[in-house]
Amino acid sequence: MKMIIAIVQSKDSNRLRKAFANNHIQMTQLSTTGGFLREGNATFLIGIEDERVQDVLDIIKKNAKSREQYVTSQMHMDVEGGSAFPVNVQIGGATVFVMPVEQFHKF
Amino acid sequence: MKMIIAIVQSKDSNRLRKAFANNHIQMTQLSTTGGFLREGNATFLIGIEDERVQDVLDIIKKNAKSREQYVTSQMHMDVEGGSAFPVNVQIGGATVFVMPVEQFHKF
Amino acid sequence: MKMIIAIVQSKDSNRLRKAFANNHIQMTQLSTTGGFLREGNATFLIGIEDERVQDVLDIIKKNAKSREQYVTSQMHMDVEGGSAFPVNVQIGGATVFVMPVEQFHKF
Ligand code: NI
Ligand code: NI
Ligand code: NI
Repeated sequence: MKMIIAIVQSKDSNRLRKAFANNHIQMTQLSTTGGFLREGNATFLIGIEDERVQDVLDIIKKNAKSREQYVTSQMHMDVEGGSAFPVNVQIGGATVFVMPVEQFHKF
Repeated sequence: MKMIIAIVQSKDSNRLRKAFANNHIQMTQLSTTGGFLREGNATFLIGIEDERVQDVLDIIKKNAKSREQYVTSQMHMDVEGGSAFPVNVQIGGATVFVMPVEQFHKF
Repeated sequence: MKMIIAIVQSKDSNRLRKAFANNHIQMTQLSTTGGFLREGNATFLIGIEDERVQDVLDIIKKNAKSREQYVTSQMHMDVEGGSAFPVNVQIGGATVFVMPVEQFHKF
């Protein structure tokens, strides 16, 4: 048994929750208040059998990994008028800790 | 020193908090938002000396274990009218992780 | 990599958050609901490289340790009128757990 703590972007949390449910992975989502560097994050607590740790990591990676996305930015300049062009931004990203568990009980 | 993470049914959380207090066991209750499979749960974080781990487990078991309860169900049927009868439902249940602690400090 | 769980007094949490930010230490603040003995506390989750654990401990100690503070107490007595005098009260205090991490991933 391991305890996995996963911190992901808020925008990926719904998708990740659904993926966990579809794969029968039980988790608890912690309410977090923004740290200075953690604004807009979601934290998941997942207790999982050793042999399923890699499955959980794969699901987190698939649904919350850092990736680039083109968004259309509108820039208004003082001189010549505005222009709209696509900008490549980084979204998502997950920080994951796998921790040992010494005893696991179901009462 | 160990860190115990206990996830119990919300309906058992008040009783469990009181039992911890009566036994001088310090804990922190985390605010959790419902996962798909975790609706209505409460999560406790308990840092505890090795020799008291079993006490904590016993208290959780006593106050939050899964058990059967007869409730009176009222079923309204379209055909013949309603009927009230006792139904045996499963309530409670605790999932508990005991985790190692390498350093413990009080400042 | 280690996971540090730090429980401090709420009144020290803003100062501690700023100190973490100034030292480029990423953390997540968990929302907690008061336990019987934990009213007014704040809980931080900090994933950190082994060689920075002592830095984190020093920052917590510096910003949230238990200390004495003189406050002016106003006592109104029934018999002879009121009197104001300084009282030495204990404020702050941090409980810190350093826990092992088996795997750390950034996706
Ligand atoms: Ni299925
Ligand atoms: Ni007592
Ligand atoms: Ni700097």
